[in-house]
Amino acid sequence: MNLIILTDEDRVSPDRYELQDERFRHICSVLSVQVGDHLKVGVLNGPVGRAEVVELTDSKVTLLCEELAESPQDPLIVDLVCAVPRPKTLRKVYGVAAAMGVRNIHLVRANRTDKSYLESPLLKSDGFLPHLIEGLAQAKRTRLPVVAVHSLFRPFVEDELPEITSGGNEITLKLLADSESSSRLQDVYAKPVGRIVLVVGPEGGWVPFESGLFIKQGFRPYSMGPWTLRVETAITAGLAQIEQVRAMLDG
Amino acid sequence: MNLIILTDEDRVSPDRYELQDERFRHICSVLSVQVGDHLKVGVLNGPVGRAEVVELTDSKVTLLCEELAESPQDPLIVDLVCAVPRPKTLRKVYGVAAAMGVRNIHLVRANRTDKSYLESPLLKSDGFLPHLIEGLAQAKRTRLPVVAVHSLFRPFVEDELPEITSGGNEITLKLLADSESSSRLQDVYAKPVGRIVLVVGPEGGWVPFESGLFIKQGFRPYSMGPWTLRVETAITAGLAQIEQVRAMLDG
Repeated sequence: MNLIILTDEDRVSPDRYELQDERFRHICSVLSVQVGDHLKVGVLNGPVGRAEVVELTDSKVTLLCEELAESPQDPLIVDLVCAVPRPKTLRKVYGVAAAMGVRNIHLVRANRTDKSYLESPLLKSDGFLPHLIEGLAQAKRTRLPVVAVHSLFRPFVEDELPEITSGGNEITLKLLADSESSSRLQDVYAKPVGRIVLVVGPEGGWVPFESGLFIKQGFRPYSMGPWTLRVETAITAGLAQIEQVRAMLDG
Repeated sequence: MNLIILTDEDRVSPDRYELQDERFRHICSVLSVQVGDHLKVGVLNGPVGRAEVVELTDSKVTLLCEELAESPQDPLIVDLVCAVPRPKTLRKVYGVAAAMGVRNIHLVRANRTDKSYLESPLLKSDGFLPHLIEGLAQAKRTRLPVVAVHSLFRPFVEDELPEITSGGNEITLKLLADSESSSRLQDVYAKPVGRIVLVVGPEGGWVPFESGLFIKQGFRPYSMGPWTLRVETAITAGLAQIEQVRAMLDG
């Protein structure tokens, strides 16, 4: 926890926040703070700065925010589309996506999505919020990714995705991770890019009908390298390579 | 498990292997094979190919290898140096490093390495082998990374690392991941590269003495992007970006 993330629910007055959960335990046992100490804090979807520990009891800590300012964070331009994975994987997907600055996470039911995965409480906000916030806290970010679950594949790809990818005057780069492709990211990259939508398949990949539908919508298959990666690892690798190519080609 | 990895210990005759552990359970319950079916197999540090299920009991499966051939795997050129992390992280480091084709994993005791981490059974081969093999099985690789543990930081960096990084006539690229650096990978990349040594710090980073010692040995600090990443995520991102830059610059 490199940043203590504060939410509206923690707020007891305009600049005071009371914490009683994991964050309280982290502040006590890992950071070992005392009254009068200062902590790095960030308001969810808001500014970052410092807070003073003004009260500390056996069950809660009270923080007084001071010097909060908009953080100079890079604009979030990547949306992620992936198949609803098993819950164990989904937790990791949330953590990595939040930490690496994904703006929207679209989870779609794929042919290889086990029906039981759709019942996971992780698909509801009470389920995903803690994992997203943990990712933000690790990465010192405050902008919460927006999670959307799509239980019908074809209407999502044919009807909703075109709206998601229409960026007005900006170029939207539509990327389909595909370990079998002979193209690499630099081959399908078009600059200047306003937005990027990255599609990462499930374990075992999309079935041909699914990848075909993405390609029909203008998504360009490319390989990240000579690897067969787990979903969460592929997402990390994909986001890392996008950042690398942007740094090299967009300067 | 995308590839069943076979080891010498499983071998009961030149081309027969008996499995009784996780792999046996995976073959029965996930792959649901029957006698006569074929599986993708790979011999640890050896060829890959197919094997026929010739016997299946309640407690073991017997595989008969056929058509094994050297796999056309990319040469492994990246060595990883990182601080001994907490066991939970170390398991993930092993999995990712094996899956992404790291050749040597050097674990060094850093200032921020908790003393207790050095007692972990994961630092002994019985401890790390299963995690490395799981990473290989996921990635369909057979080349096992070599793990070395270095309990003295300074002698490792000053005496052993120069030997590790001396590549004869080849250029060895010495990379020090550093989120504070204003350089990016393309700025410190020198081609053609024969070998790469990637240094990734512990949670909280190297202390200045440590990073200074790496720099004195010719390691070049660079940032992967606007991120504060967990160790295993930083390793994934670092390896993904190295692959990306190689594809673009060595093409």
